[in-house]
Amino acid sequence: MTKTDFCVYVDERRALIDSALAGFVPPDTQEPRLVHAAMRHAVLSNGKRLRPILSLAASDLAELPRERAMPCACAVELIHTASLILDDLPCMDNALERRGRPCVHVAFGEATALLAVMGLVALAFELAAREGNQEIAACLARSMGTSGLVAGQQADLALTGNGVSLDAIEQVDNRKSGALFIAAVHVPAILAGMGHSDTDAIEVYARNLGLAFQITDDLLDANAGHEDAGKDTFVSQLGVDGAHNRVKELIAVATGALERWDARAEPLRMMADYVGARS
Amino acid sequence: MTKTDFCVYVDERRALIDSALAGFVPPDTQEPRLVHAAMRHAVLSNGKRLRPILSLAASDLAELPRERAMPCACAVELIHTASLILDDLPCMDNALERRGRPCVHVAFGEATALLAVMGLVALAFELAAREGNQEIAACLARSMGTSGLVAGQQADLALTGNGVSLDAIEQVDNRKSGALFIAAVHVPAILAGMGHSDTDAIEVYARNLGLAFQITDDLLDANAGHEDAGKDTFVSQLGVDGAHNRVKELIAVATGALERWDARAEPLRMMADYVGARS
Repeated sequence: MTKTDFCVYVDERRALIDSALAGFVPPDTQEPRLVHAAMRHAVLSNGKRLRPILSLAASDLAELPRERAMPCACAVELIHTASLILDDLPCMDNALERRGRPCVHVAFGEATALLAVMGLVALAFELAAREGNQEIAACLARSMGTSGLVAGQQADLALTGNGVSLDAIEQVDNRKSGALFIAAVHVPAILAGMGHSDTDAIEVYARNLGLAFQITDDLLDANAGHEDAGKDTFVSQLGVDGAHNRVKELIAVATGALERWDARAEPLRMMADYVGARS
Repeated sequence: MTKTDFCVYVDERRALIDSALAGFVPPDTQEPRLVHAAMRHAVLSNGKRLRPILSLAASDLAELPRERAMPCACAVELIHTASLILDDLPCMDNALERRGRPCVHVAFGEATALLAVMGLVALAFELAAREGNQEIAACLARSMGTSGLVAGQQADLALTGNGVSLDAIEQVDNRKSGALFIAAVHVPAILAGMGHSDTDAIEVYARNLGLAFQITDDLLDANAGHEDAGKDTFVSQLGVDGAHNRVKELIAVATGALERWDARAEPLRMMADYVGARS
C-alpha cells in the first residue's frame, strides 16, 4: 500500500463514517431540538475520526462486513465526542474553541452541553445494542468507565506539574487514549469471533498506538508553544527528543504486533506510521 | 396485603438493593479513588429506591429470579442517580443539598461530579450487559437518551412559568419520571419473556405511576412552600385540588392496568396507593 493508497483508504472511510454519524444523530428539527443541535455540533465537526477508522480497519482485517462494523465504530466516536465536551467545560480545561469552532458549552450553554453528553452516550449504547451481542455494550462500558476513560480524565486533573513518575503519566495516557483505541479494535474482534491470540495481538497494537498518539498530541502542543506548564507530560519529563524516541518505540511495538497478518493488516501498519510521523 | 405487610416488603427490598448497590459501585480505596468516593456519596444515600423496588416488584410478578432482576434494577437506579447529580449542578438547579447531605459537586467539585456521572452511566450499562440480552441495554439507552430522560430535562429547563399548556407539562413529566419508571418494569418483562399484552399493561401502569409521582413531588414542594415560582407545574396550572384530582385519576388508571393479575400484583397495587397518598 502506497501513501497515496492509504490517503484514499482513510478519506473513503472518513466520508462513510461522517455520513453514518449524520444519520445516527437525530436531526435538530426533532425534539429536544436544542440538545440534538448541540449533539450534531459536537459530532459533525471536522474530526480526524481516528478511532472509528481504526475500528473499520480492524473490521477489514477480521473480515467483518462494513454494515455490522459501522454502528459500533460510530458508538466509539460518540463516546469520544462526549468526553471532549466534558473536557472543554469551564470546570475542566475551560476551552472556548475546538476544531476551529466554539465549544458546545459556548455555543449552547453548559446545561444543554451536559444533556448532549448524556444523549451521545445513550445513543452510543443504543447503537452498540443493535448488534445483538451484549459483550459489545460491556466492552464499551468498561472502556468509558472508571477502569478506562473516566480514570484517565480524573488522573489527568491530578497531573499538576509536580513531577510525577513517567509510569504515572503512562498510566494516565493509556487510559485517556488507550481505552477507546482498544475498544475500537476489540469490538469488531468480538463481532467477528476473532480468536484469543489474534485479539490479544490487535489489542497490543491499539494500546501502543493510543499511547503514541497521546504523546504526539503533547509534542504538537509543545511545538506550537501551547504546552500546559502546569501539567506533567512525556514531553515535560523526557524532553522533545526523548518523547520522540518513546513514540518510535511504541510504534515499533504496535507494528510488531501485526506481524502475524499479511497484506490485510497494511492499513493498520500505515496508520501506525501516520501516528508516528505526525509530531 | 396489609399496609404493614407492604412496609415489610418495601423495607426488605430496599435493604437488598442498598446492599447490592454497595457491592456494585467500586470501593473508594480503588483508583480513581475520588471518582469512586463521589459515586458512592451519590448512590449510597438515603434514597427511596422507588425505581429499583418497582423493578423487583415487576420481577416478582413476572416470576423472574431475584439474582437476574437485581443488576438491572440497580442499573436503573444508577442512571437515575447520575441524572440527579446533573440536575443539582450550578448550571442546572444550582442545589447545595440533596437528601440532607451536600450535593456531589459541593462535596467533590464539579469536575469530579461530572466524572462520577460518566462512571455511574458506564457501570449501569456494564450491569445491564451482564444479563446476556442486548435488548436490556437498548431499553435503558432509550429511556436515558433524547427520547426519554434527556428530553425531559431539556424541556424542564424551558418551563419558565410563561403558562405553557397542561399537555406540554405532562409531556415533560412523562419523560422526566416516566422514562425510567417504564424502563424499571420493561427490563424484567424482557428478561422474563413476558408476552406483549402483559408488557403493555405493566407499561401503562408504570407510565401513569411515574406521572403521578412527579405531580406529588410538585405538590409536596408546594405544601412546603418550596415551589419554584418561575416554573410551570401541574400545581401552578391546576391548583392544589386540581393536581390532587389528577393524581387520583392517574393512580386509578395505573391500578386498572393491573386487573389482569391476581395477588401477585398486590405489591404493585400497594405501591400505587403509596404514591397516591404521599402528597
